[in-house]
Amino acid sequence: MSRMKDEENLTKLGSNGTKYPQDYAPEMLETFVNKHQENDYWVKFNCPEFTTLCPITGQPDFATLYISYVPDVKMVESKSLKLYLFSFRNHGDFHEDVVNIIMKDLIKLLDPRYIEVWGKFLPRGGISIDPYANYGRPGTKYEKLAEMRFSRHDIECLDKVDNR
Amino acid sequence: MSRMKDEENLTKLGSNGTKYPQDYAPEMLETFVNKHQENDYWVKFNCPEFTTLCPITGQPDFATLYISYVPDVKMVESKSLKLYLFSFRNHGDFHEDVVNIIMKDLIKLLDPRYIEVWGKFLPRGGISIDPYANYGRPGTKYEKLAEMRFSRHDIECLDKVDNR
Amino acid sequence: MSRMKDEENLTKLGSNGTKYPQDYAPEMLETFVNKHQENDYWVKFNCPEFTTLCPITGQPDFATLYISYVPDVKMVESKSLKLYLFSFRNHGDFHEDVVNIIMKDLIKLLDPRYIEVWGKFLPRGGISIDPYANYGRPGTKYEKLAEMRFSRHDIECLDKVDNR
Amino acid sequence: MSRMKDEENLTKLGSNGTKYPQDYAPEMLETFVNKHQENDYWVKFNCPEFTTLCPITGQPDFATLYISYVPDVKMVESKSLKLYLFSFRNHGDFHEDVVNIIMKDLIKLLDPRYIEVWGKFLPRGGISIDPYANYGRPGTKYEKLAEMRFSRHDIECLDKVDNR
Amino acid sequence: MSRMKDEENLTKLGSNGTKYPQDYAPEMLETFVNKHQENDYWVKFNCPEFTTLCPITGQPDFATLYISYVPDVKMVESKSLKLYLFSFRNHGDFHEDVVNIIMKDLIKLLDPRYIEVWGKFLPRGGISIDPYANYGRPGTKYEKLAEMRFSRHDIECLDKVDNR
Amino acid sequence: MSRMKDEENLTKLGSNGTKYPQDYAPEMLETFVNKHQENDYWVKFNCPEFTTLCPITGQPDFATLYISYVPDVKMVESKSLKLYLFSFRNHGDFHEDVVNIIMKDLIKLLDPRYIEVWGKFLPRGGISIDPYANYGRPGTKYEKLAEMRFSRHDIECLDKVDNR
Amino acid sequence: MSRMKDEENLTKLGSNGTKYPQDYAPEMLETFVNKHQENDYWVKFNCPEFTTLCPITGQPDFATLYISYVPDVKMVESKSLKLYLFSFRNHGDFHEDVVNIIMKDLIKLLDPRYIEVWGKFLPRGGISIDPYANYGRPGTKYEKLAEMRFSRHDIECLDKVDNR
Amino acid sequence: MSRMKDEENLTKLGSNGTKYPQDYAPEMLETFVNKHQENDYWVKFNCPEFTTLCPITGQPDFATLYISYVPDVKMVESKSLKLYLFSFRNHGDFHEDVVNIIMKDLIKLLDPRYIEVWGKFLPRGGISIDPYANYGRPGTKYEKLAEMRFSRHDIECLDKVDNR
Amino acid sequence: MSRMKDEENLTKLGSNGTKYPQDYAPEMLETFVNKHQENDYWVKFNCPEFTTLCPITGQPDFATLYISYVPDVKMVESKSLKLYLFSFRNHGDFHEDVVNIIMKDLIKLLDPRYIEVWGKFLPRGGISIDPYANYGRPGTKYEKLAEMRFSRHDIECLDKVDNR
Amino acid sequence: MSRMKDEENLTKLGSNGTKYPQDYAPEMLETFVNKHQENDYWVKFNCPEFTTLCPITGQPDFATLYISYVPDVKMVESKSLKLYLFSFRNHGDFHEDVVNIIMKDLIKLLDPRYIEVWGKFLPRGGISIDPYANYGRPGTKYEKLAEMRFSRHDIECLDKVDNR
Ligand SMILES: [Ca+2]
Ligand SMILES: [Ca+2]
Ligand SMILES: [Ca+2]
Ligand SMILES: [Ca+2]
Ligand SMILES: [Ca+2]
Ligand SMILES: [Ca+2]
Ligand SMILES: [Ca+2]
Ligand SMILES: [Ca+2]
Ligand SMILES: [Ca+2]
Ligand SMILES: [Ca+2]
Ligand SMILES: [Ca+2]
Ligand SMILES: [Ca+2]
Ligand SMILES: [Ca+2]
Ligand SMILES: [Ca+2]
Ligand SMILES: [Ca+2]
Ligand SMILES: [Ca+2]
Repeated sequence: MSRMKDEENLTKLGSNGTKYPQDYAPEMLETFVNKHQENDYWVKFNCPEFTTLCPITGQPDFATLYISYVPDVKMVESKSLKLYLFSFRNHGDFHEDVVNIIMKDLIKLLDPRYIEVWGKFLPRGGISIDPYANYGRPGTKYEKLAEMRFSRHDIECLDKVDNR
Repeated sequence: MSRMKDEENLTKLGSNGTKYPQDYAPEMLETFVNKHQENDYWVKFNCPEFTTLCPITGQPDFATLYISYVPDVKMVESKSLKLYLFSFRNHGDFHEDVVNIIMKDLIKLLDPRYIEVWGKFLPRGGISIDPYANYGRPGTKYEKLAEMRFSRHDIECLDKVDNR
Repeated sequence: MSRMKDEENLTKLGSNGTKYPQDYAPEMLETFVNKHQENDYWVKFNCPEFTTLCPITGQPDFATLYISYVPDVKMVESKSLKLYLFSFRNHGDFHEDVVNIIMKDLIKLLDPRYIEVWGKFLPRGGISIDPYANYGRPGTKYEKLAEMRFSRHDIECLDKVDNR
Repeated sequence: MSRMKDEENLTKLGSNGTKYPQDYAPEMLETFVNKHQENDYWVKFNCPEFTTLCPITGQPDFATLYISYVPDVKMVESKSLKLYLFSFRNHGDFHEDVVNIIMKDLIKLLDPRYIEVWGKFLPRGGISIDPYANYGRPGTKYEKLAEMRFSRHDIECLDKVDNR
Repeated sequence: MSRMKDEENLTKLGSNGTKYPQDYAPEMLETFVNKHQENDYWVKFNCPEFTTLCPITGQPDFATLYISYVPDVKMVESKSLKLYLFSFRNHGDFHEDVVNIIMKDLIKLLDPRYIEVWGKFLPRGGISIDPYANYGRPGTKYEKLAEMRFSRHDIECLDKVDNR
Repeated sequence: MSRMKDEENLTKLGSNGTKYPQDYAPEMLETFVNKHQENDYWVKFNCPEFTTLCPITGQPDFATLYISYVPDVKMVESKSLKLYLFSFRNHGDFHEDVVNIIMKDLIKLLDPRYIEVWGKFLPRGGISIDPYANYGRPGTKYEKLAEMRFSRHDIECLDKVDNR
Repeated sequence: MSRMKDEENLTKLGSNGTKYPQDYAPEMLETFVNKHQENDYWVKFNCPEFTTLCPITGQPDFATLYISYVPDVKMVESKSLKLYLFSFRNHGDFHEDVVNIIMKDLIKLLDPRYIEVWGKFLPRGGISIDPYANYGRPGTKYEKLAEMRFSRHDIECLDKVDNR
Repeated sequence: MSRMKDEENLTKLGSNGTKYPQDYAPEMLETFVNKHQENDYWVKFNCPEFTTLCPITGQPDFATLYISYVPDVKMVESKSLKLYLFSFRNHGDFHEDVVNIIMKDLIKLLDPRYIEVWGKFLPRGGISIDPYANYGRPGTKYEKLAEMRFSRHDIECLDKVDNR
Repeated sequence: MSRMKDEENLTKLGSNGTKYPQDYAPEMLETFVNKHQENDYWVKFNCPEFTTLCPITGQPDFATLYISYVPDVKMVESKSLKLYLFSFRNHGDFHEDVVNIIMKDLIKLLDPRYIEVWGKFLPRGGISIDPYANYGRPGTKYEKLAEMRFSRHDIECLDKVDNR
Repeated sequence: MSRMKDEENLTKLGSNGTKYPQDYAPEMLETFVNKHQENDYWVKFNCPEFTTLCPITGQPDFATLYISYVPDVKMVESKSLKLYLFSFRNHGDFHEDVVNIIMKDLIKLLDPRYIEVWGKFLPRGGISIDPYANYGRPGTKYEKLAEMRFSRHDIECLDKVDNR
């Protein structure tokens, strides 16, 4: 819903509204407290509107990101996640780095029991790249969870990637 | 089949028909006895018509819920489940809370051997959230079942979540 | 993005945010001026989150609405359209009436050159209903446009409606 | 929602509930008055749960029926339509006859401006049959509508019918 | 292929043809000898044309059944299975009972090494129910097979069940 | 349903059953009388199990045939159509000829008001061929129908033919 | 293909490579001469990577654009089109304006016989907007082409827009 | 089927087999006589294995070509068409030129009543190009056919071209 | 590519070309030597063009076969496999036998480390049958591989088999 | 983006641009250093534009390749991978060899922790072949990873391979 009813109010509304960051901004990320810490449960974010710039050529790259985690005490606030992902928009990183950086920022923020990040980028030069990284808290059963899920990642590929 | 043949009967028919709850109503849930207690078997409910209100903004949220359980003595009556889910319609809870609350209400009602609840919400701000929680009766093999299924949850994501 | 960072601010934020209407509220609809009145062009709204109540049984109904129009001087502001459609949430009307009412309200609001509204409802009793209404300004070529589009409506049905 | 909360009430509830006809029962069909007679609009029923018996072999046949009409004064009540379609369940007619009979019964009932009925049957012997009939009130523009739609019926077949 | 070339022969042909049972008829089931008893192999039946009646309301229910088994000495003759499934057509049972009854009848008939039955019913009241039961011969490795398959049942739900 | 309950009866049952032709057999085609001659209506056969032999190389070819016609007095009996199509199984003709021959045989048999035949063959050498022929009775409005449908054939190709 | 083999060369390569515009830049568009001016033919660009900013809220919007035209003397160079579309990345315009602006810029650049632009935007607030504009050179048959295509735009909506 | 049973025969078999052209080779095209000249009918080739080289960068381009024509006296032999299309493999032409050249070569070869060629290329730089050209023999009704089909080309774009 | 350029050469070309067997012909199968015997790797054949005759009724049956194996010394030549599968065309066997026979013939031919054969047949009488058999060389780790894959066969059925 | 703005610059631009290899060219492959060596993560390349020549017949073959690996110190540069895959374009190898050769070249280049290559080829003679090979560094846990993934390869085939 992007349009104001009264065009005169645009600036005002824009100014006391959301502030979109102009470059990579991990400080946008905020948290709230998990009310169900006694249980393990999954929270997954589907983010099909991720875009960044190629650090070499400056051309735009597009991806769908899937971020899944098992919260401990802290949970990521979803609007702040949106703004954080927006902050890659005019920033440049390689595909593999994007996925690793996002995972690391969220680990630092949340200290989650488990987290995984999967990026599915649109093709360049007829090839597309899908990096995947995951993490389980060291010395816990979640570390084993990470190993198991890593080993089984994408094991039955039925997704037809035919570039059209 | 929502329309009466005789419009004059509308009020009457509505009054002696089903009563839809106006707010969160776990008391709607009713049970009947499982005739096949000697066996483990799965019962799964696909609920694509779930809707609730955001507790902050009041805007509507939509989800498909998948509820699967292994009954012990009691089974949930499906029409009462429908009314219970309806009771979230004008009630507000966060996505993660909805999934946890439904699971807990059903555990309390049924004391099932195993249960899991998966919510797939429509996107807000370009991101969608899918919480998943499960439970196996403590101290039984169903507790292990819960651990195993939790660890393998959503391990091969092929569902194209691209917002169109 | 429905969750606040600071839970204490919920009420405040909710109060100075959007006000969701509690019943049918055509007064929610607002307009802005078309900047391209010299041209005919199409604006289509895809609204997959429409829900209303059955006036007889009180049970919820769900639909996807497609609203397409050719603007003249006034255009409908999309957030106000969202709130207007929300106002059917706890209101009851038959499927065919919903589609006709929405079209008439938008004609009254916009005096458009052309408009059409198509509702695709989820099944009840194993049958689903899809009403479609359209309108072209009388005495203009848009009246003929309406006749032509009406006559060709849904002429090649390939959409598999198998209830699953 | 098929199950009662109290099994003892089953018979009672069944008895004061809907009466399902045991054989072809056009008398089940009921009507109500069209509130929008000043306008032409489409009402379409998607009926994926149609089943009948082969009059020769007694074997069951299954189809999805699509019924679309432009109402004049009378409209068909959807629950009565459901019961009418149910009445073919233990009745036998050939595929082409089913489609013609349903159309004729609805013409007699409604005297509609326009109507069309399309049946898509499941395969027998590796072949499936899809009859289609339509009607426009003679001497009106709807007769021409029927001719036009008949001539363009199924003109771009993209539905992959591979029997699985 | 349901239509006779010569209509006069209909009765005769119908009479010396297949006899369709009028109510639940497990006696229809027949067997033949497995020629490959030295090997384990799977036989799966896909049965998308299953229909029964709700025991409370009398309304029709529809499902796709998937029946998979590992034969021992006896195998189920497929035409007799078809007639057996037909016998539920005018019979009433709850969804969960249907799946359990079919499995038990086939166990009694075949004494199979392993069997599983999965029913996917069309929605009623906006919710659909999918029961699943399985069995491995007690005291054999097939009992473990049943436990393993039970625990992994439907673990990655990607089937979009959105009622349209 | 291909298997007998009693293997001893196989030959007998096979002998008094259907006789499948060994080569091109237009004489298999039989007709019955159209009960709805006063109306135009469509009958369409979807035939995904068509196979023939290449007249040069002897290799098998596979196609889905779509046969649609508007009957006049005679209608084709569907089982005889099945046997007729079977008769191409060990016969050889080019793709374009197959489609033309079938259409001509059915015109001769039925003297229909209108008929069209569309073959969609599986690829050979990375290319697939889809011939389409149609016919309207000369000197009638059906001749014009044929011209119109011919001119609009396959005008919006969305079927993704990517050989897998 | 975004990554350099030798990271030291990044700056150099970036500098003598493509220059991406920082704001709306119609001057990026370049043309070349149509070699087939004697014929009418269609050129269509599918542009699924279009993104812009909401002028009110600053939030990102995403769309797939379809641009189709019939060239006269000048054709648009595809890489320059890509850079032009990129120039909306950090620029703000409403959905309807974007589509009209792009069409007008291309008309000014190319003086085409015919052109149409269709934008399909990702949803905001549960609603998505699809504007469509077209143009035929005034006083020519292409003006009529534009009227015809405008009147038939999107007449058979089968695209399931359900936000997941 | 690419592998020989006896590897010693490879050279021999390769040498007396098909000769694949090394560059653009319209002379590969051969014809045979149409046996059904009295009728108009369509022949369509689906060619998803087309590849060529970019004349500037030398990079490979990939497309699916759809070639449809109404034959007069001559028809194109399908294996020769395959070899002709292969001859673009190491040849360079722009997308629009490829489509026009193929159409012109086939017109010259066949003097068809009508022909159309549609190329759907895989994306480069996030954009894909789909050229379409058609032709009807001048001064005949096929010229009008070409105009009609040209005007209606791709009028209802539902093909989701989203690069994945 | 079924058509010769010079029709006079047909017989000659046909005669020195491939000889298609007239009945079950395991002797058609030929092998070549595996160049990568030091590694385990999978080779899978997708065979959607399999057809045979019902031994009782003589009616044709159709299936897609999936054959996967881990080669040891010998590999099956793909053209000979094609001819072998063709040899079932006019031969009759039950569905379960077909799958077992093909597996046994390939085991005899190749002495593979592992092999599995899955047949997915088109429906007869509203039911389709999918047999699956597999084998691992006894006394090796491949025997365990067979047990594991057998136990997990088809464990998550998402293939919608709805007979159309 | 294949077209130059200034056609005179074509040669120059082509000459100082990318050099495409004319035959199998493993020397094209280049690497860069993994910045995240402390973690295991997946990088997957989807390559739907792979084409090669049959070594016997010279005919083109097409495949989609999926290459997934867990990097150690070295990572493959994606543009060099593209050029390497291009080098098979006019080179001939059997399907199984292609997959093995690519895997071996990448092992030699990268010394990865783990790698797998899956080729899905388009059909020839009605059959398609999908080879799959994988590798884990000997004596490490990645060797076990390879065994596990090999044993589970393609265990639930739902990809409908129907050759169109
Ligand atoms: Ca494709
Ligand atoms: Ca999409
Ligand atoms: Ca279905
Ligand atoms: Ca559906
Ligand atoms: Ca298919
Ligand atoms: Ca849906
Ligand atoms: Ca159309
Ligand atoms: Ca395909
Ligand atoms: Ca396919
Ligand atoms: Ca959708
Ligand atoms: Ca989606
Ligand atoms: Ca796509
Ligand atoms: Ca794709
Ligand atoms: Ca799986
Ligand atoms: Ca299906
Ligand atoms: Ca199908």
